[in-house]
Amino acid sequence: MVTTRPRRVAAPAPAARLRPVIEGIRPLVDGGRFRAKAAVGDDVVVEADVFVDGHDLLRCEVRHQCDGDRRWAAVPMQPLGNDRWRARFPVDAVGPHRFTVHADVDRWGTWTRDLAARVGAGQDVAAELGEGAALLAAAAGRAKGADRAALAAASGCLADAVRGLETDLPDLPDRLAAGDTLADLVFGGPLADLARRYGPSDTAVTSPPCPLVVEPALARFANWYELFPRSASPDADRPGTLADVVDRLPYLARLGVDVLYLPPVHPIGTTSRKGPNGAVIAGPDDPGSPWAIGSADGGHTAVHPDLGTLGDFDRLVAAAAERGITVALDLAFQCSPDHPWVADHPQWFRHRPDGSIRFAENPPKQYQDIFPLDFDTPDWVALWEALAEVVWFWMDHGVSVFRVDNPHTKPFGFWEWLIGAVKADRPDVLFLSEAFTRPRVMERLAKVGFSQSYTYFTWRRTKWELQEYLTELAGKADYLRPNFWPNTPDILTDQLQTGGTPAFIARLVLAATLAASYGIYGPAFELQQHAAREPGSEEYAGSEKYAVRHWDLDAPDSLADLVGRVNAIRHDHPALQYDHPLTFHHVDNDQLIAYSKSRGDDVVLVVVNLDPVYPQAGWLDLDLAALAVAPDRPFVVHDLLTDAHYRWDGARNYVALDPAAVPAHVLAVRPVRP
Amino acid sequence: MVTTRPRRVAAPAPAARLRPVIEGIRPLVDGGRFRAKAAVGDDVVVEADVFVDGHDLLRCEVRHQCDGDRRWAAVPMQPLGNDRWRARFPVDAVGPHRFTVHADVDRWGTWTRDLAARVGAGQDVAAELGEGAALLAAAAGRAKGADRAALAAASGCLADAVRGLETDLPDLPDRLAAGDTLADLVFGGPLADLARRYGPSDTAVTSPPCPLVVEPALARFANWYELFPRSASPDADRPGTLADVVDRLPYLARLGVDVLYLPPVHPIGTTSRKGPNGAVIAGPDDPGSPWAIGSADGGHTAVHPDLGTLGDFDRLVAAAAERGITVALDLAFQCSPDHPWVADHPQWFRHRPDGSIRFAENPPKQYQDIFPLDFDTPDWVALWEALAEVVWFWMDHGVSVFRVDNPHTKPFGFWEWLIGAVKADRPDVLFLSEAFTRPRVMERLAKVGFSQSYTYFTWRRTKWELQEYLTELAGKADYLRPNFWPNTPDILTDQLQTGGTPAFIARLVLAATLAASYGIYGPAFELQQHAAREPGSEEYAGSEKYAVRHWDLDAPDSLADLVGRVNAIRHDHPALQYDHPLTFHHVDNDQLIAYSKSRGDDVVLVVVNLDPVYPQAGWLDLDLAALAVAPDRPFVVHDLLTDAHYRWDGARNYVALDPAAVPAHVLAVRPVRP
Repeated sequence: MVTTRPRRVAAPAPAARLRPVIEGIRPLVDGGRFRAKAAVGDDVVVEADVFVDGHDLLRCEVRHQCDGDRRWAAVPMQPLGNDRWRARFPVDAVGPHRFTVHADVDRWGTWTRDLAARVGAGQDVAAELGEGAALLAAAAGRAKGADRAALAAASGCLADAVRGLETDLPDLPDRLAAGDTLADLVFGGPLADLARRYGPSDTAVTSPPCPLVVEPALARFANWYELFPRSASPDADRPGTLADVVDRLPYLARLGVDVLYLPPVHPIGTTSRKGPNGAVIAGPDDPGSPWAIGSADGGHTAVHPDLGTLGDFDRLVAAAAERGITVALDLAFQCSPDHPWVADHPQWFRHRPDGSIRFAENPPKQYQDIFPLDFDTPDWVALWEALAEVVWFWMDHGVSVFRVDNPHTKPFGFWEWLIGAVKADRPDVLFLSEAFTRPRVMERLAKVGFSQSYTYFTWRRTKWELQEYLTELAGKADYLRPNFWPNTPDILTDQLQTGGTPAFIARLVLAATLAASYGIYGPAFELQQHAAREPGSEEYAGSEKYAVRHWDLDAPDSLADLVGRVNAIRHDHPALQYDHPLTFHHVDNDQLIAYSKSRGDDVVLVVVNLDPVYPQAGWLDLDLAALAVAPDRPFVVHDLLTDAHYRWDGARNYVALDPAAVPAHVLAVRPVRP
Repeated sequence: MVTTRPRRVAAPAPAARLRPVIEGIRPLVDGGRFRAKAAVGDDVVVEADVFVDGHDLLRCEVRHQCDGDRRWAAVPMQPLGNDRWRARFPVDAVGPHRFTVHADVDRWGTWTRDLAARVGAGQDVAAELGEGAALLAAAAGRAKGADRAALAAASGCLADAVRGLETDLPDLPDRLAAGDTLADLVFGGPLADLARRYGPSDTAVTSPPCPLVVEPALARFANWYELFPRSASPDADRPGTLADVVDRLPYLARLGVDVLYLPPVHPIGTTSRKGPNGAVIAGPDDPGSPWAIGSADGGHTAVHPDLGTLGDFDRLVAAAAERGITVALDLAFQCSPDHPWVADHPQWFRHRPDGSIRFAENPPKQYQDIFPLDFDTPDWVALWEALAEVVWFWMDHGVSVFRVDNPHTKPFGFWEWLIGAVKADRPDVLFLSEAFTRPRVMERLAKVGFSQSYTYFTWRRTKWELQEYLTELAGKADYLRPNFWPNTPDILTDQLQTGGTPAFIARLVLAATLAASYGIYGPAFELQQHAAREPGSEEYAGSEKYAVRHWDLDAPDSLADLVGRVNAIRHDHPALQYDHPLTFHHVDNDQLIAYSKSRGDDVVLVVVNLDPVYPQAGWLDLDLAALAVAPDRPFVVHDLLTDAHYRWDGARNYVALDPAAVPAHVLAVRPVRP
């Protein structure tokens, strides 16, 4: 056996000596690869596992700043148990933000905790008091001015106590219990703060910066409304214009619309133009799809002559702003065969071996009126920059919200670059991802920068499906903000096709109360359009995508007043302006779904009958804690839709909802004051 | 409005163009900060979310190598659905390993898929065939030799087909269906492999290397046994020695022991030595605690003179090895007041203001016979290196397994450095973490390098507790290997104190069949020692920690034969040599727990009666898929403990277990061949 041996060990690195561990930080998206999302008005809640070997106590804090600030603000973290710590801080400045988690051994706290345990067990603590004096003396050495003097004086006082106490130690527990000055000195008060503040920091550990993006409150909460300007004409004999949309603004304001989203307003190609209901051959008067962008009149930076001029567009943006309505524009990065880029930049498109440009396909489906851009072209840098120019063009025309068409068919790297570049310049600008595709793809688009995302809500109909899906979304809340739509120009669900008014109301209430951002495609929604192109299809009959429609806003069955009421409730109730906390409550009837949200004192409880045909009733088992209601006190629920009031008592309450009346309760919950 | 504007966009970085995304890789511990664990004989199962924008198909593979190898081995990944991919590869070389996930757009696969869809829809595919010819020609340009010739020929053939097909395209579906050569050419066979192999790699993405550590199979599976050498004397008149342990080896071999773990064998201090049952004052003949290490006879690299010599130790290691038993040594990095380091390196200990060295404490608890080392001493580098010397000393004496005492009271950075340094030199050396502390701390010790971890198994007794805990451990399997112990010298649970033989058997079977690594502290276990020091205590009466014991191995109630049988079953059944897969099966009696493990053809189903007093019976609802049993075929279960055979049919089966007989079934499951 070898008992003397050459040294085989590399000396430990200095960092090995740092003892506290910081793990499991949230919010942190893919280890910091992407920014977690926050919006003005949010409290950012930071949590982390923080611990150290042995028995020492820790002090932990979150430090945060806007990127580029010189100073950090600090917030102490509170232990939640099981080595989990939490702090929260408000954000009010739009732009990139970051935070770190900072941990250090709390030598003073550890010393006082151990001293108390020793005193309690009647142990000799003279040497321990001497150690306290030494800790204070060392702290004094790191302090200045009055702090230094206070620490030095306290250290001397403790050292004196040691000398005095050596003879009368048995009295110490009584003296401490009696509130002796020494006890104050050691265990609490301003001295403890000083002792911690000037404690040694040689074991301090700081996490890497965790990136956040703070967006406008509009990213978190808004009532959206989509309409086709060419269908906004009050005159059945001519198509609508942007000027007509200006005239529509009072109606939209009555509906409580915050964001007015317009499909593309650009010139539409004629080559391979689609006809009514998407027919492959268009008639001479068919207007074509607004998504077949570009003609001799221009491309992505032009306004369709039939809709008006750039000046009309500017006037619409300004008039909407006066009513508090933000105009959102569609970004559909694709071209009609007549788009100026086809001639000017043929290299931006994919060609087939016969020299023809590939039209859009998802084989065997073919979209002959659209040429996809080839994001992978050797000339990709010029193409990407040209697309960025489009965004800046419309930003310069007052657009700060973009709804992006099919972002999942363009590279993630493109969006990350584009949105990053835009936000570096204009952090207030928002992008909504219209990607109805696979979960990982939708999540990635949210991570690379989209402020909001369309979701599967449209197809989630049963209680189980809705609860599962909202629970899944809660797990992505650090980076993905859902925007719920009961319908879109592409999606008329079979529920709306067959469920009648109860289905429209139920889907409206679900969307408007489950998600802080939601929208409807109107006037098709409030006018309860439910005819599909053909059985089994989710396409609207006579879809506005391919035809001009004229809408009778005064139709007697219009849900406009209900939409206005629901949106007003959302404006009045902060609980509905955040996605979380969302709590599902048990009802013993699978056709009834119940959930609540709260924000400060505002608590809203929603019950919806998912059955569009039959009245449904059942017993609610409320989670009273989620409603901030004491179990031994009655409370009042005020139905914000019908203005009815009910006095409830305890967790178990009976609910009945008739689809022939209003198939939902939206209840403000208020405790009855003693 | 500004319509012309200066360029405000930074050009995209070249990497922005790479389209595939790789996310959610596992195994990957804290984003690669730590090595995931594998053992010789494992299949490493790698999974990742891999996806790309649009509709293109991907090809994905895992590449892996031993650190330092020049070449990577590649394994194709298979899609599991929902953008999840999986591959597996075996590991057989001990040491650091790594893998990457590699993804690329499968242009050939995408082309053939789209072509099939187009043909199916009766579309004109002449241009598409031309594109296929171009893909093959480009691949030929990247290939050499025979591959190049084959690709060029195929490209020409396809191009010829285009020219020919332009006139008879309507036949194509029939020709493809009839197995025409063209179909073979396009859709399958060796050409497809070549086309993929030499496809363009300009969109290829590779994940960062993901680190693994491959450890000996012993890290995954072993029967452990702890004994105190000083209690191994066959002669009641003298304490045991290392030579007595050599004589005990045949007994241990009969028990099926793989790892023999010895508490510290070093000289024991006399200052403040503890007496029987941990008494503060020791009598003159009391031997003291083996964990109070160090006396005038030496420290951590010496053998207690009463146990023998270093030569005796070497002979024990060699004799054990001859029987296939590995000797594991205790690493308890602390000193008695008489340890040579106290005089030679006083700066390695913490001093109080009065100059005395601090003994170990967890206030108000005091351990006067032990001085903790001050890992944070200004002289920390020298201290850490001295501790490393201790490890190398014993490695040089044939020790390759260390059980580490209370690692959670030393800095994580110390263990990461020490274990990393040891494994760089001797990747076969294993460390078992004896940290009975908070979950995050136990997890971190596993992450920084410990091969195995003590667990809370000892205190998990109900079916719900056991299932919850095993499920929790499954979530940590990438880095934490549990080692289950029904008892230790510190822990005599109330179950064993009060449950009699049924409790001993049930806990033995649970430990031995739930975890691939388990151990008992004997002979206290097999001799069913159950007397506690005092009511409410988990300490053994007359604990061997403070006293020499003499054991009657021939006692009639010894469970040695049963332990031997259980350990033999473990040696015979690969299913029990891995922690996973572990499946719990439903039994309609909460006192009965049922679970199964499988490995290849080997399937073992275990049912245990958790009630030590009453017989319990119930209906099992078996997950037949987990048992690899066809639902429509009978199967045989063979009780490996009692040798009974039962013929079962279907998922629902009756079980009854009487604690007065054997309170457990360990059933080998075998389908009846048709």
